Amino acid sequence: MDLHLLSSLVVPNQSKVVLAVLDGLGDIAGPEGLTPLEAARTPNLDRLAEKGVCGLHIPVAPGITPGSGPAHIGLFGYDPWRNLIGRGVLDTAGTDFVFQPGDLAARINYATLAPDGTVADRRAGRLDDAEGRRVTQKLARAITRIDGVQVLLQHVKDYRAAAIFRGEKLDARLGDSDPQKTGFKPLEVKPLEQKPTPEALRAARLANLFIEQAARELAGEKKANFVMLRGFDVYQPLEDFCRLYQWRAVAVAAYPMYKGVARLCGMRVIDEGQQKLEEEISLLEKHFGEGDFFFLHFKKTDSAGEDGNFAAKVSAIEEFDAQLPRIEALQPQVLCITGDHSTPCVLRSHSWHPVPVCLVAESARRDDCRKFSEREFLRGGLGIIHSTDLLPLLLAHAGRLQKFGA
Amino acid sequence: MDLHLLSSLVVPNQSKVVLAVLDGLGDIAGPEGLTPLEAARTPNLDRLAEKGVCGLHIPVAPGITPGSGPAHIGLFGYDPWRNLIGRGVLDTAGTDFVFQPGDLAARINYATLAPDGTVADRRAGRLDDAEGRRVTQKLARAITRIDGVQVLLQHVKDYRAAAIFRGEKLDARLGDSDPQKTGFKPLEVKPLEQKPTPEALRAARLANLFIEQAARELAGEKKANFVMLRGFDVYQPLEDFCRLYQWRAVAVAAYPMYKGVARLCGMRVIDEGQQKLEEEISLLEKHFGEGDFFFLHFKKTDSAGEDGNFAAKVSAIEEFDAQLPRIEALQPQVLCITGDHSTPCVLRSHSWHPVPVCLVAESARRDDCRKFSEREFLRGGLGIIHSTDLLPLLLAHAGRLQKFGA
Repeated sequence: MDLHLLSSLVVPNQSKVVLAVLDGLGDIAGPEGLTPLEAARTPNLDRLAEKGVCGLHIPVAPGITPGSGPAHIGLFGYDPWRNLIGRGVLDTAGTDFVFQPGDLAARINYATLAPDGTVADRRAGRLDDAEGRRVTQKLARAITRIDGVQVLLQHVKDYRAAAIFRGEKLDARLGDSDPQKTGFKPLEVKPLEQKPTPEALRAARLANLFIEQAARELAGEKKANFVMLRGFDVYQPLEDFCRLYQWRAVAVAAYPMYKGVARLCGMRVIDEGQQKLEEEISLLEKHFGEGDFFFLHFKKTDSAGEDGNFAAKVSAIEEFDAQLPRIEALQPQVLCITGDHSTPCVLRSHSWHPVPVCLVAESARRDDCRKFSEREFLRGGLGIIHSTDLLPLLLAHAGRLQKFGA
Repeated sequence: MDLHLLSSLVVPNQSKVVLAVLDGLGDIAGPEGLTPLEAARTPNLDRLAEKGVCGLHIPVAPGITPGSGPAHIGLFGYDPWRNLIGRGVLDTAGTDFVFQPGDLAARINYATLAPDGTVADRRAGRLDDAEGRRVTQKLARAITRIDGVQVLLQHVKDYRAAAIFRGEKLDARLGDSDPQKTGFKPLEVKPLEQKPTPEALRAARLANLFIEQAARELAGEKKANFVMLRGFDVYQPLEDFCRLYQWRAVAVAAYPMYKGVARLCGMRVIDEGQQKLEEEISLLEKHFGEGDFFFLHFKKTDSAGEDGNFAAKVSAIEEFDAQLPRIEALQPQVLCITGDHSTPCVLRSHSWHPVPVCLVAESARRDDCRKFSEREFLRGGLGIIHSTDLLPLLLAHAGRLQKFGA
């Protein structure tokens, strides 16, 4: 849907909307023929499934496996195809770095280079957070400008950092320098296009100069003696989520990337060191008076899926279920529980499978779903929708959309 | 779907198609956990549900609540987003007024202005039809031309009329003059855009001059001493429904607005003073030999929903059910029964909820639906479709579409 058209129908009110995203929630059958949702004991989720309207959403398009960025961007109503955000921008946005439009950002992985110039360790021995911060500060002091362009360094987490090039029009269509395997030499950064723009050639040159200089500065480091760049992207702000829908949007997440994507949409991101779900929900409670739309992110379901750990995913789901009454107690007018994508344990990775979604509101039309699961929700009243259809539905059930046309 | 592409596949035949629209049919659960369709006794509708293929349609897009115009436009196969029709044109089209392309139409509400210049009654004491007609004729005699532009007055119903400005290129992107509340002064008509076109500035000027002159002419009236304008729109004919699908389309409705939208599509509108459903069906019987496609509109379901009257909606549904065998007796090749949108009694207004649709034809693939209801139709063979998908399905089941491609 055209966001401006949708925006033109918005009428603000006092309602509150909670969108709880269990990362990688969807799954396929495990060893006993059940999905983790089917295997888990979820009295609270099941009660909501019975009370609300259920269905499944397709994150990007049938068959397309989304990264975390596109998956969330879609849930927030933006076209994920047209608003692809590179890793460089996404990871940096998860920190307190303040972007300027036009900034070119690349994700840095600190690596260990062997004396023969091949990559010995792609994560520099999984450098810890303090060490990562130290090395980034060292680089930041040494490299502030290359070839007339300002260079900014940002620590992200552990062995991950970001390099931002500012002050010139640059084209981010560049390949990564990470060879993806140890024992190979790092790659030169090259434009992706057959006929690159002058801005892409310039950006590649800057990136390669940066890698060279960084290598010189880090020559004395035991572990982190090299940087690899990937996920080049130019920062362009998304349409502001708060302005589009005339509400105060608040994000509560533990992981930087999800804070980042919320921040890129213009949400206020709560950052009080929360790690556990119960801490996140405490922050939701604490800040509930300060917002209208709340994005709550729960990571464990995805991590368990990526690890192929069926039992851990079941227990993550049960952990969420146990905390759910605390969210209900806040009495939001609309409570929506879903995932951003599926992460089937047997695949150990994100997947394209539709994701269960349950929406509870006074105006929700009840269906016959009694249990919160992929299979049960096939009978749900929402049917199988696109992830981008969810936001208009949240607005509608919150009474925040006026009639279209006479 | 692209209408020209669809049109290119049409092969006329002798089949007849009846599309019966129960306005605002869809609902959500009422006090006893049932929707009006679930609560009503509907042996005939249920029999058709068993015999035909069922499903639900989304009128405009998920979460979007349509006005009557967009809701019907979608059922007739036109993209409701791109063919938004303003109230001025829609209401006028429901009369016998003959539009010319480029006419700018505004809906008039007669109002009572207090001596202090504020609106005392937004409907001039709900002026009756005869009085409304008289006042409109008075205005029509007095005002025929403003600033070189022709002005036409059209009675619509009761306190409602329309003003049409003809003979110059005008831009309808204008705000209403109705302050929407009594005790406030009427608004000046102003362009909606920040940077209005010269045509919008000109149109605003004409509208304001008309309001001034009308006030002078009506100064002696006790009730209707003022006009308020809203729903400005420029008439642009839609692609002709009869030419696109090579059939004779006939509309039977009691309310002007539904006649209007059918007329705007190019349907022949039967206008023999019909008010009750049984009268409408008598006209359907009478004119059945004269058409191929029949649009039958039943208003009561929507009115009951708007009034929040659950029992009245149940009884309207049962009234339709009782008349249904008369429609079946005409033996159309395709009989489709649906609504244009939902009007849940508890919301007392139109809503975004998907609308049940049942299509009966020889070639319909039967499903497991046994009852005509929102919940039952979630199991239907049509699934959840967009309203604009219905027309191609009607054509297909009527054998009026040839194969696409070799």
